Amino acid sequence: MPSLDFWFDFASTYSYPAAMRAGVELRWRPFLLGPIFFEQQGIKDSPFNVNLVRGRYMWRDLERICARQRIPWRKPSVFPRNSTLAAKVACAVETEPWLPAYARAVFTANFAEDRDISDRAVLSGILTSLGQDAAAVLARAEAPGNPLRARTEEAKRLGLFGAPTFVAGTELFFGQDRMDEALEWARATATA
Amino acid sequence: MPSLDFWFDFASTYSYPAAMRAGVELRWRPFLLGPIFFEQQGIKDSPFNVNLVRGRYMWRDLERICARQRIPWRKPSVFPRNSTLAAKVACAVETEPWLPAYARAVFTANFAEDRDISDRAVLSGILTSLGQDAAAVLARAEAPGNPLRARTEEAKRLGLFGAPTFVAGTELFFGQDRMDEALEWARATATA
Repeated sequence: MPSLDFWFDFASTYSYPAAMRAGVELRWRPFLLGPIFFEQQGIKDSPFNVNLVRGRYMWRDLERICARQRIPWRKPSVFPRNSTLAAKVACAVETEPWLPAYARAVFTANFAEDRDISDRAVLSGILTSLGQDAAAVLARAEAPGNPLRARTEEAKRLGLFGAPTFVAGTELFFGQDRMDEALEWARATATA
Repeated sequence: MPSLDFWFDFASTYSYPAAMRAGVELRWRPFLLGPIFFEQQGIKDSPFNVNLVRGRYMWRDLERICARQRIPWRKPSVFPRNSTLAAKVACAVETEPWLPAYARAVFTANFAEDRDISDRAVLSGILTSLGQDAAAVLARAEAPGNPLRARTEEAKRLGLFGAPTFVAGTELFFGQDRMDEALEWARATATA
Protein backbone atom coordinates (compact mmCIF):
# COMPACT_ATOMS: atom_id res chain seq x y z
CA MET A 1 0.00 0.00 0.00
CA PRO A 2 1.41 3.41 -0.91
CA SER A 3 2.13 5.84 1.87
CA LEU A 4 0.29 9.07 1.22
CA ASP A 5 -0.53 11.65 3.86
CA PHE A 6 -3.62 13.81 3.52
CA TRP A 7 -3.10 17.06 5.40
CA PHE A 8 -6.30 18.99 6.08
CA ASP A 9 -7.82 21.72 8.22
CA PHE A 10 -11.53 21.59 9.09
CA ALA A 11 -11.73 25.33 8.42
CA SER A 12 -10.31 24.96 4.90
CA THR A 13 -12.89 25.17 2.15
CA TYR A 14 -10.98 23.13 -0.43
CA SER A 15 -10.24 20.45 2.17
CA TYR A 16 -13.97 19.66 2.21
CA PRO A 17 -14.34 18.11 -1.29
CA ALA A 18 -10.99 16.37 -0.79
CA ALA A 19 -12.12 14.78 2.47
CA MET A 20 -15.40 13.63 0.92
CA ARG A 21 -13.40 11.72 -1.70
CA ALA A 22 -10.41 10.60 0.35
CA GLY A 23 -10.22 6.90 1.09
CA VAL A 24 -8.72 4.76 3.80
CA GLU A 25 -5.54 4.35 1.75
CA LEU A 26 -4.62 7.84 2.91
CA ARG A 27 -3.13 8.71 6.27
CA TRP A 28 -5.32 11.54 7.53
CA ARG A 29 -3.31 14.37 9.06
CA PRO A 30 -5.24 17.19 10.74
CA PHE A 31 -3.39 20.44 11.35
CA LEU A 32 -4.06 24.15 11.77
CA LEU A 33 -3.51 26.58 8.92
CA GLY A 34 -3.82 29.69 11.12
CA PRO A 35 -0.26 29.63 12.55
CA ILE A 36 1.14 28.90 9.09
CA PHE A 37 -0.71 31.78 7.43
CA PHE A 38 0.47 34.07 10.22
CA GLU A 39 4.08 32.94 9.96
CA GLN A 40 4.28 33.00 6.15
CA GLN A 41 1.94 35.85 5.28
CA GLY A 42 1.61 37.85 8.49
CA ILE A 43 -2.17 37.56 8.42
CA LYS A 44 -4.60 36.50 11.16
CA ASP A 45 -7.47 35.68 8.82
CA SER A 46 -8.08 33.46 5.82
CA PRO A 47 -6.20 34.60 2.69
CA PHE A 48 -9.61 34.43 1.00
CA ASN A 49 -10.88 37.14 3.33
CA VAL A 50 -7.72 39.22 2.97
CA ASN A 51 -7.89 39.15 -0.86
CA LEU A 52 -11.59 39.52 -1.59
CA VAL A 53 -11.17 39.08 -5.35
CA ARG A 54 -9.57 35.71 -4.79
CA GLY A 55 -12.16 34.94 -2.12
CA ARG A 56 -15.03 35.63 -4.50
CA TYR A 57 -13.53 33.17 -6.98
CA MET A 58 -12.99 30.52 -4.30
CA TRP A 59 -16.64 30.55 -3.20
CA ARG A 60 -17.89 30.16 -6.76
CA ASP A 61 -15.26 27.54 -7.53
CA LEU A 62 -16.15 25.52 -4.45
CA GLU A 63 -19.83 25.62 -5.40
CA ARG A 64 -18.95 24.24 -8.85
CA ILE A 65 -16.63 21.58 -7.46
CA CYS A 66 -19.28 20.33 -5.04
CA ALA A 67 -21.88 20.23 -7.81
CA ARG A 68 -19.50 18.25 -10.02
CA GLN A 69 -18.68 15.90 -7.17
CA ARG A 70 -22.36 15.66 -6.19
CA ILE A 71 -21.80 16.58 -2.55
CA PRO A 72 -23.98 19.00 -0.62
CA TRP A 73 -22.82 22.58 -0.27
CA ARG A 74 -24.04 25.64 1.58
CA LYS A 75 -21.88 28.72 1.99
CA PRO A 76 -21.11 29.00 5.72
CA SER A 77 -22.36 32.16 7.42
CA VAL A 78 -19.08 32.35 9.36
CA PHE A 79 -15.70 31.86 7.68
CA PRO A 80 -13.25 30.69 8.70
CA ARG A 81 -14.64 28.81 11.67
CA ASN A 82 -12.35 27.96 14.58
CA SER A 83 -11.28 24.40 13.90
CA THR A 84 -9.03 23.83 16.90
CA LEU A 85 -11.29 21.59 19.00
CA ALA A 86 -12.48 19.59 15.99
CA ALA A 87 -8.84 19.04 14.99
CA LYS A 88 -7.85 18.07 18.53
CA VAL A 89 -10.56 15.41 18.46
CA ALA A 90 -9.25 14.16 15.10
CA CYS A 91 -5.73 13.96 16.52
CA ALA A 92 -6.98 12.11 19.59
CA VAL A 93 -8.76 9.47 17.51
CA GLU A 94 -6.41 9.26 14.55
CA THR A 95 -5.77 5.55 14.92
CA GLU A 96 -9.51 4.78 15.04
CA PRO A 97 -11.08 3.33 11.88
CA TRP A 98 -13.92 5.85 12.18
CA LEU A 99 -11.63 8.90 11.84
CA PRO A 100 -12.57 9.47 8.17
CA ALA A 101 -16.29 9.23 9.04
CA TYR A 102 -15.79 11.75 11.86
CA ALA A 103 -13.83 14.09 9.59
CA ARG A 104 -16.44 13.94 6.84
CA ALA A 105 -19.20 14.66 9.35
CA VAL A 106 -17.32 17.72 10.65
CA PHE A 107 -16.68 19.01 7.13
CA THR A 108 -20.33 18.43 6.25
CA ALA A 109 -21.46 20.32 9.34
CA ASN A 110 -19.27 23.28 8.37
CA PHE A 111 -19.74 23.42 4.61
CA ALA A 112 -23.09 21.79 3.94
CA GLU A 113 -25.11 22.48 7.10
CA ASP A 114 -23.64 25.84 8.19
CA ARG A 115 -23.15 24.60 11.74
CA ASP A 116 -20.54 25.89 14.16
CA ILE A 117 -17.84 23.24 14.38
CA SER A 118 -16.16 25.04 17.27
CA ASP A 119 -19.25 24.29 19.38
CA ARG A 120 -18.78 21.31 21.74
CA ALA A 121 -22.44 20.42 21.33
CA VAL A 122 -22.04 20.09 17.56
CA LEU A 123 -18.97 17.87 17.93
CA SER A 124 -20.69 15.84 20.67
CA GLY A 125 -23.63 15.25 18.38
CA ILE A 126 -21.35 14.04 15.61
CA LEU A 127 -19.44 11.70 17.93
CA THR A 128 -22.67 10.31 19.36
CA SER A 129 -24.05 9.72 15.87
CA LEU A 130 -20.93 7.65 15.18
CA GLY A 131 -21.68 5.46 18.21
CA GLN A 132 -18.93 6.99 20.34
CA ASP A 133 -18.89 8.16 23.94
CA ALA A 134 -18.74 11.86 23.15
CA ALA A 135 -17.78 13.05 26.64
CA ALA A 136 -14.92 10.55 26.84
CA VAL A 137 -13.60 11.46 23.39
CA LEU A 138 -13.75 15.19 24.10
CA ALA A 139 -11.91 14.61 27.39
CA ARG A 140 -9.18 12.73 25.51
CA ALA A 141 -9.00 15.51 22.96
CA GLU A 142 -8.55 18.16 25.62
CA ALA A 143 -6.09 16.23 27.78
CA PRO A 144 -2.48 17.46 27.86
CA GLY A 145 -0.24 16.11 25.16
CA ASN A 146 -2.67 16.38 22.27
CA PRO A 147 -0.44 16.20 19.17
CA LEU A 148 -2.20 18.96 17.21
CA ARG A 149 0.46 21.56 17.96
CA ALA A 150 3.26 19.13 17.06
CA ARG A 151 1.38 18.19 13.90
CA THR A 152 1.19 21.83 12.85
CA GLU A 153 4.93 22.19 13.48
CA GLU A 154 5.50 19.10 11.35
CA ALA A 155 3.40 20.65 8.58
CA LYS A 156 5.67 23.71 8.68
CA ARG A 157 8.79 21.56 8.48
CA LEU A 158 7.34 19.72 5.48
CA GLY A 159 6.88 23.03 3.67
CA LEU A 160 3.08 23.21 3.74
CA PHE A 161 1.48 26.56 3.02
CA GLY A 162 -2.15 25.59 2.48
CA ALA A 163 -4.67 22.76 2.54
CA PRO A 164 -5.41 20.22 1.41
CA THR A 165 -1.90 19.02 0.74
CA PHE A 166 -0.97 15.46 -0.12
CA VAL A 167 2.50 14.33 0.90
CA ALA A 168 4.34 11.30 -0.50
CA GLY A 169 7.79 11.19 1.01
CA THR A 170 9.27 14.60 0.29
CA GLU A 171 6.86 15.33 -2.56
CA LEU A 172 4.01 17.76 -1.92
CA PHE A 173 0.85 18.02 -3.97
CA PHE A 174 -1.22 21.07 -3.09
CA GLY A 175 -4.92 21.31 -3.86
CA GLN A 176 -8.02 19.16 -3.82
CA ASP A 177 -7.63 18.34 -7.51
CA ARG A 178 -4.16 16.79 -7.08
CA MET A 179 -5.21 13.74 -5.05
CA ASP A 180 -5.15 11.31 -7.96
CA GLU A 181 -1.74 12.49 -9.11
CA ALA A 182 -0.40 12.21 -5.56
CA LEU A 183 -1.77 8.68 -5.25
CA GLU A 184 -0.22 7.77 -8.57
CA TRP A 185 3.11 9.19 -7.41
CA ALA A 186 2.92 7.29 -4.11
CA ARG A 187 2.11 4.04 -5.90
CA ALA A 188 4.95 4.47 -8.41
CA THR A 189 7.37 5.19 -5.58
CA ALA A 190 6.19 2.22 -3.55
CA THR A 191 6.76 -0.20 -6.44
CA ALA A 192 9.97 1.44 -7.67
CA MET B 1 -17.13 26.78 -31.39
CA PRO B 2 -17.17 27.53 -27.69
CA SER B 3 -15.91 30.90 -26.56
CA LEU B 4 -13.13 30.45 -24.04
CA ASP B 5 -10.57 33.10 -23.19
CA PHE B 6 -7.09 32.09 -22.08
CA TRP B 7 -5.58 34.85 -19.95
CA PHE B 8 -1.83 34.60 -19.49
CA ASP B 9 1.26 36.57 -18.52
CA PHE B 10 4.61 35.69 -20.07
CA ALA B 11 6.21 36.08 -16.63
CA SER B 12 3.82 33.57 -15.03
CA THR B 13 5.32 30.15 -14.41
CA TYR B 14 2.08 28.19 -14.51
CA SER B 15 1.04 29.98 -17.71
CA TYR B 16 3.90 28.19 -19.48
CA PRO B 17 2.56 24.60 -19.43
CA ALA B 18 -0.91 25.96 -20.17
CA ALA B 19 0.32 27.83 -23.25
CA MET B 20 2.17 24.77 -24.50
CA ARG B 21 -1.12 22.84 -24.45
CA ALA B 22 -3.56 25.57 -25.44
CA GLY B 23 -5.08 25.24 -28.86
CA VAL B 24 -6.49 27.58 -31.44
CA GLU B 25 -9.99 27.07 -30.01
CA LEU B 26 -8.96 29.46 -27.23
CA ARG B 27 -8.92 33.23 -27.51
CA TRP B 28 -5.46 34.18 -26.25
CA ARG B 29 -5.51 37.14 -23.90
CA PRO B 30 -2.16 38.54 -22.75
CA PHE B 31 -2.19 40.78 -19.67
CA LEU B 32 0.09 41.91 -16.86
CA LEU B 33 -0.17 40.39 -13.40
CA GLY B 34 2.05 43.01 -11.76
CA PRO B 35 -0.58 45.75 -11.41
CA ILE B 36 -3.10 43.18 -10.16
CA PHE B 37 -0.76 41.79 -7.50
CA PHE B 38 0.01 45.32 -6.41
CA GLU B 39 -3.64 46.34 -6.21
CA GLN B 40 -4.88 43.18 -4.48
CA GLN B 41 -1.91 42.23 -2.34
CA GLY B 42 0.16 45.41 -2.09
CA ILE B 43 3.26 43.64 -3.41
CA LYS B 44 5.68 44.65 -6.16
CA ASP B 45 7.11 41.17 -6.69
CA SER B 46 5.81 37.71 -7.49
CA PRO B 47 3.80 36.17 -4.63
CA PHE B 48 6.15 33.19 -5.04
CA ASN B 49 9.08 35.41 -4.08
CA VAL B 50 7.16 37.05 -1.23
CA ASN B 51 6.18 33.69 0.31
CA LEU B 52 9.29 31.57 -0.12
CA VAL B 53 7.66 28.40 1.21
CA ARG B 54 5.01 28.61 -1.46
CA GLY B 55 7.67 29.57 -3.98
CA ARG B 56 9.73 26.48 -3.22
CA TYR B 57 6.68 24.31 -3.83
CA MET B 58 5.86 26.09 -7.09
CA TRP B 59 9.32 25.48 -8.60
CA ARG B 60 9.20 21.79 -7.78
CA ASP B 61 5.61 21.51 -8.93
CA LEU B 62 6.38 23.19 -12.24
CA GLU B 63 9.31 20.84 -12.81
CA ARG B 64 6.98 17.85 -12.26
CA ILE B 65 4.24 19.30 -14.49
CA CYS B 66 6.68 19.89 -17.35
CA ALA B 67 8.07 16.36 -16.98
CA ARG B 68 4.54 14.94 -17.07
CA GLN B 69 3.65 17.05 -20.07
CA ARG B 70 7.00 16.26 -21.74
CA ILE B 71 7.93 19.87 -22.33
CA PRO B 72 11.41 21.28 -21.70
CA TRP B 73 12.04 23.10 -18.47
CA ARG B 74 14.93 25.02 -16.95
CA LYS B 75 14.50 27.19 -13.88
CA PRO B 76 15.04 30.78 -15.00
CA SER B 77 17.94 32.59 -13.37
CA VAL B 78 15.78 35.72 -13.09
CA PHE B 79 12.19 35.60 -11.84
CA PRO B 80 9.89 37.19 -12.58
CA ARG B 81 11.12 38.61 -15.86
CA ASN B 82 9.64 41.84 -17.16
CA SER B 83 7.00 40.72 -19.63
CA THR B 84 5.68 44.09 -20.75
CA LEU B 85 7.25 44.29 -24.21
CA ALA B 86 6.56 40.63 -24.99
CA ALA B 87 2.92 41.18 -23.98
CA LYS B 88 2.66 44.38 -26.05
CA VAL B 89 3.82 42.39 -29.07
CA ALA B 90 1.21 39.72 -28.34
CA CYS B 91 -1.49 42.40 -28.11
CA ALA B 92 -0.32 43.96 -31.38
CA VAL B 93 -0.54 40.67 -33.27
CA GLU B 94 -3.49 39.08 -31.50
CA THR B 95 -5.50 38.62 -34.67
CA GLU B 96 -2.61 36.90 -36.46
CA PRO B 97 -2.79 33.12 -36.82
CA TRP B 98 0.81 32.85 -35.57
CA LEU B 99 0.06 34.42 -32.15
CA PRO B 100 0.06 31.01 -30.37
CA ALA B 101 3.39 30.12 -32.00
CA TYR B 102 4.85 33.46 -30.90
CA ALA B 103 3.53 33.01 -27.37
CA ARG B 104 4.91 29.48 -27.08
CA ALA B 105 8.30 30.66 -28.32
CA VAL B 106 8.39 33.44 -25.71
CA PHE B 107 7.37 31.06 -22.90
CA THR B 108 9.99 28.58 -24.07
CA ALA B 109 12.67 31.29 -24.10
CA ASN B 110 11.78 32.23 -20.52
CA PHE B 111 11.15 28.84 -18.93
CA ALA B 112 13.15 26.37 -20.98
CA GLU B 113 16.07 28.41 -22.32
CA ASP B 114 16.57 30.93 -19.52
CA ARG B 115 16.63 33.84 -21.94
CA ASP B 116 15.64 37.39 -21.12
CA ILE B 117 12.25 37.99 -22.70
CA SER B 118 12.42 41.71 -21.90
CA ASP B 119 15.34 41.98 -24.34
CA ARG B 120 14.33 43.36 -27.76
CA ALA B 121 16.97 41.19 -29.42
CA VAL B 122 15.40 38.03 -27.97
CA LEU B 123 11.94 39.05 -29.15
CA SER B 124 13.33 40.08 -32.55
CA GLY B 125 14.94 36.68 -32.92
CA ILE B 126 11.66 34.95 -32.13
CA LEU B 127 9.71 37.10 -34.57
CA THR B 128 12.27 36.55 -37.32
CA SER B 129 12.20 32.79 -36.73
CA LEU B 130 8.45 32.96 -37.31
CA GLY B 131 9.02 34.62 -40.66
CA GLN B 132 7.92 38.06 -39.50
CA ASP B 133 9.43 41.49 -40.03
CA ALA B 134 10.67 41.91 -36.46
CA ALA B 135 11.34 45.65 -36.65
CA ALA B 136 7.88 46.33 -38.07
CA VAL B 137 6.15 44.19 -35.45
CA LEU B 138 8.09 45.81 -32.59
CA ALA B 139 7.21 49.23 -33.97
CA ARG B 140 3.52 48.26 -34.00
CA ALA B 141 3.83 46.94 -30.46
CA GLU B 142 5.34 50.17 -29.20
CA ALA B 143 3.03 52.51 -31.09
CA PRO B 144 0.50 54.49 -29.04
CA GLY B 145 -2.79 52.75 -28.40
CA ASN B 146 -1.41 49.30 -27.61
CA PRO B 147 -4.28 47.56 -25.82
CA LEU B 148 -2.16 45.92 -23.10
CA ARG B 149 -3.13 48.41 -20.43
CA ALA B 150 -6.82 48.15 -21.34
CA ARG B 151 -6.50 44.37 -21.34
CA THR B 152 -5.09 44.42 -17.83
CA GLU B 153 -7.96 46.66 -16.71
CA GLU B 154 -10.38 44.20 -18.28
CA ALA B 155 -8.71 41.37 -16.36
CA LYS B 156 -9.32 43.30 -13.14
CA ARG B 157 -12.96 43.85 -14.01
CA LEU B 158 -13.38 40.15 -14.72
CA GLY B 159 -12.08 39.34 -11.22
CA LEU B 160 -8.75 37.82 -12.19
CA PHE B 161 -6.13 37.47 -9.45
CA GLY B 162 -3.60 35.14 -11.11
CA ALA B 163 -2.63 33.33 -14.28
CA PRO B 164 -3.41 31.32 -16.19
CA THR B 165 -7.13 31.93 -15.94
CA PHE B 166 -9.70 30.57 -18.36
CA VAL B 167 -12.86 32.61 -18.76
CA ALA B 168 -16.12 31.34 -20.22
CA GLY B 169 -18.74 34.08 -20.01
CA THR B 170 -18.73 35.07 -16.33
CA GLU B 171 -17.16 31.79 -15.19
CA LEU B 172 -13.48 31.82 -14.19
CA PHE B 173 -11.25 28.77 -13.99
CA PHE B 174 -7.92 29.52 -12.37
CA GLY B 175 -4.89 27.32 -12.86
CA GLN B 176 -3.13 25.44 -15.62
CA ASP B 177 -4.87 22.20 -14.64
CA ARG B 178 -8.38 23.60 -15.17
CA MET B 179 -8.21 24.05 -18.95
CA ASP B 180 -10.13 20.89 -19.78
CA GLU B 181 -12.88 21.70 -17.29
CA ALA B 182 -13.12 25.23 -18.66
CA LEU B 183 -13.39 23.93 -22.23
CA GLU B 184 -16.06 21.48 -21.13
CA TRP B 185 -17.98 24.31 -19.46
CA ALA B 186 -17.66 26.51 -22.55
CA ARG B 187 -18.90 23.72 -24.82
CA ALA B 188 -21.84 22.89 -22.56
CA THR B 189 -22.80 26.56 -22.44
CA ALA B 190 -22.49 26.97 -26.21
CA THR B 191 -24.85 24.06 -26.90
CA ALA B 192 -27.27 24.83 -24.05
